[in-house]
Amino acid sequence: MALMVKMRSPAHSWARRLVAAVRCTEWATGGKVSARRFGSQRQLVMVEPSPTAGVAVLKLKNPPVNSLSLEFLTELNINLEKLENDKTFRGIIITSDCPRIFSAGLDLKELCGKNPAHYTEYYKALQNLWLRLYLSNLVLISAINGSCIAAGCLISLACDYRILADNPKYVIGMNETRLGLVAPFWFKDNLVNTIGHRASERALQLGLLFPPAEALQVGIVDKVVPEDQVQSTALSVMAQWLAVQDHARHLTKNMMRKSTADLLVKQRDADIQNFISFLSRDSIQKSLQMYLAKLTQNKG
Amino acid sequence: MALMVKMRSPAHSWARRLVAAVRCTEWATGGKVSARRFGSQRQLVMVEPSPTAGVAVLKLKNPPVNSLSLEFLTELNINLEKLENDKTFRGIIITSDCPRIFSAGLDLKELCGKNPAHYTEYYKALQNLWLRLYLSNLVLISAINGSCIAAGCLISLACDYRILADNPKYVIGMNETRLGLVAPFWFKDNLVNTIGHRASERALQLGLLFPPAEALQVGIVDKVVPEDQVQSTALSVMAQWLAVQDHARHLTKNMMRKSTADLLVKQRDADIQNFISFLSRDSIQKSLQMYLAKLTQNKG
Amino acid sequence: MALMVKMRSPAHSWARRLVAAVRCTEWATGGKVSARRFGSQRQLVMVEPSPTAGVAVLKLKNPPVNSLSLEFLTELNINLEKLENDKTFRGIIITSDCPRIFSAGLDLKELCGKNPAHYTEYYKALQNLWLRLYLSNLVLISAINGSCIAAGCLISLACDYRILADNPKYVIGMNETRLGLVAPFWFKDNLVNTIGHRASERALQLGLLFPPAEALQVGIVDKVVPEDQVQSTALSVMAQWLAVQDHARHLTKNMMRKSTADLLVKQRDADIQNFISFLSRDSIQKSLQMYLAKLTQNKG
Repeated sequence: MALMVKMRSPAHSWARRLVAAVRCTEWATGGKVSARRFGSQRQLVMVEPSPTAGVAVLKLKNPPVNSLSLEFLTELNINLEKLENDKTFRGIIITSDCPRIFSAGLDLKELCGKNPAHYTEYYKALQNLWLRLYLSNLVLISAINGSCIAAGCLISLACDYRILADNPKYVIGMNETRLGLVAPFWFKDNLVNTIGHRASERALQLGLLFPPAEALQVGIVDKVVPEDQVQSTALSVMAQWLAVQDHARHLTKNMMRKSTADLLVKQRDADIQNFISFLSRDSIQKSLQMYLAKLTQNKG
Repeated sequence: MALMVKMRSPAHSWARRLVAAVRCTEWATGGKVSARRFGSQRQLVMVEPSPTAGVAVLKLKNPPVNSLSLEFLTELNINLEKLENDKTFRGIIITSDCPRIFSAGLDLKELCGKNPAHYTEYYKALQNLWLRLYLSNLVLISAINGSCIAAGCLISLACDYRILADNPKYVIGMNETRLGLVAPFWFKDNLVNTIGHRASERALQLGLLFPPAEALQVGIVDKVVPEDQVQSTALSVMAQWLAVQDHARHLTKNMMRKSTADLLVKQRDADIQNFISFLSRDSIQKSLQMYLAKLTQNKG
Repeated sequence: MALMVKMRSPAHSWARRLVAAVRCTEWATGGKVSARRFGSQRQLVMVEPSPTAGVAVLKLKNPPVNSLSLEFLTELNINLEKLENDKTFRGIIITSDCPRIFSAGLDLKELCGKNPAHYTEYYKALQNLWLRLYLSNLVLISAINGSCIAAGCLISLACDYRILADNPKYVIGMNETRLGLVAPFWFKDNLVNTIGHRASERALQLGLLFPPAEALQVGIVDKVVPEDQVQSTALSVMAQWLAVQDHARHLTKNMMRKSTADLLVKQRDADIQNFISFLSRDSIQKSLQMYLAKLTQNKG
């Protein structure tokens, strides 16, 4: 859901950059992705220690725009599971290694011209990622150092705290409707739990992308700081969260979030079928194919 | 629920105007209403084209205060159904043709001294109106050019966006408790989805009517503009909503609202019984009859 | 949950005062509490008339910090039940008779080294208190003239309106996680209904205690006034609430709150078992015992 479908002149600079970037770079990796899925030499997720004991920094590194390919989702899930099970870690700061973009969301190439088995695998990986993040026992802080779009925004919303770089070119939100798509209900639930029902209604229907000041006001991020202070702020906020005993904190977190997560857990299969059925519509596939064909043509 | 019961000196100027207006005008139409319900020469709802293609302007025209008589509710439902099914329309701006009042809410004469069959028909029409508005596939924008009370407020809350004229004499809210009445639970649900639980708790119990600045702050309207800019603002906001593809937008709207609407759909009959039972209490009927008798007497 | 466990240097002055106060005073009453439960010569709850007809002032008087002992909870329940059933009363202002503290929350001595039957009795009294307050037909206003912590905060949240004295040393919030404890789900539900999901998530996990300006901003109180105006403001706010007919107001209140209260009512026993099971963990008992031993030693 990262790329523009049917939107002729993208208004946001992130979108222009995104389209340009995709044209220049992303397609070069095209057909090889699935072949080297588990034997990739590229490292899409980098886990590094932080200055704070017990805190890892997880960097999203799928240039140019951290679009969520199946390979990338899989690596994210694997790395998050490892960190969750490693008792030396109490918190993770999630940030981007790509300039100017946190994540552009789903990789549309995964959604186009593939078979239902592929869509199922892909969507399950996305469901898994959200459930893993949303219910994590670790403290998760998003250090959002670039635009944060659609499923990229979901990753942030599933964290415990969101810090956005104060750059007016960066935007955050769920713009699915702008591509003719509909966010899954659990995207909506996570957004409603964050900014409330009314603001979600408007933001989701209009596909709003909020620049920093508006993002702070609507509550889709918790803090806006100068770009060079995003990481240091993340560390100081993390210290505040780690001052609380883990056990009491994650029982409390679970009490706050379990009922929302359960809405997905209890209907995962129906949710998958709904996604595949929507995606398989001629009108949706045609939109995606036209868009991708246009990109390919432009590359030629 | 439009009129004051047991309130000896209405504090708000809208209420004074309303009482005066009712005394002068409304009773003149009294007994004839039901007879010409479907053959009315009065046109209570005016549907006009707007400068924007695909957008209709629906004007409420039941002077003096747009109180929601059965005839008026019926015409509203018919007109809205027609617009919903007419593929040339994508959005409706709902506004008032009566000066200084958007709608004063339910017509108390429909609630007093009638039989249960009448109450049932009336209340069903109200349920239908709300369900139709709340789940409409069209973009609905309220251009609130006057006070907007009780069930009149409900009409606005069921829209996608609310613009209120910046006139300190205009107020918006659900004041049922001020009349000794209780708003139905779906009024409450729609309000909670708009301004949150805590603000609703206070507003509904106290029967608060918010002037423009407070209305904006609590979030019961989305925008306050000078009175002569209400219609033009409605058109420009409409353009923003129409920039989104209809299909994705209304699937998203449905995802946001269906569970709330279903709470009513699943217990429509029980809700009707509850309403009739409340309305049939001696104390409630006595209040209404005393109030109406006083109005008649004053007219004499 | 009133006292600090494992927190070596309490940051808040209320906590330092609290620890000091407990050391000096509270233990003196220790073993005798249960013996004179129903024959107490101390009066822990004072009910006084107010200048407004129909309004009682209920003063919490369990010095030094109004910690909620079983005796105190029982007296509260008895007094509230009496007021609820006395038709001369329409509203209660709840305030503290102890300087600088509204209530420090649960009495940890009730949670430590006792048997399951005692825990059950204690926790049931707490459940009863909340249900009684949250669904009261009376107008309840909290005149919060001191720090208001954990279950003390719950008492305020269950009221209809909260006025906090503007003293930067006073804080309000639910700090259970700071003691290694977890607030019951109905504390959480009441908080979410008051300040929303996102703010509750952060406040509960971090165990935040808000000073007046922050408390007002997050919405955990409705008004902050100079300390010497807390009582007079409570009376004028009460007048506003009493301007509404009782019957319509409490039907509306019930409509807003019943579904939340029912979540507890429907699983009271499971909630009790969950509480006892958590409390009986070695790690929790050890924390409490170490803390209490330390207090006793310091007294020696």
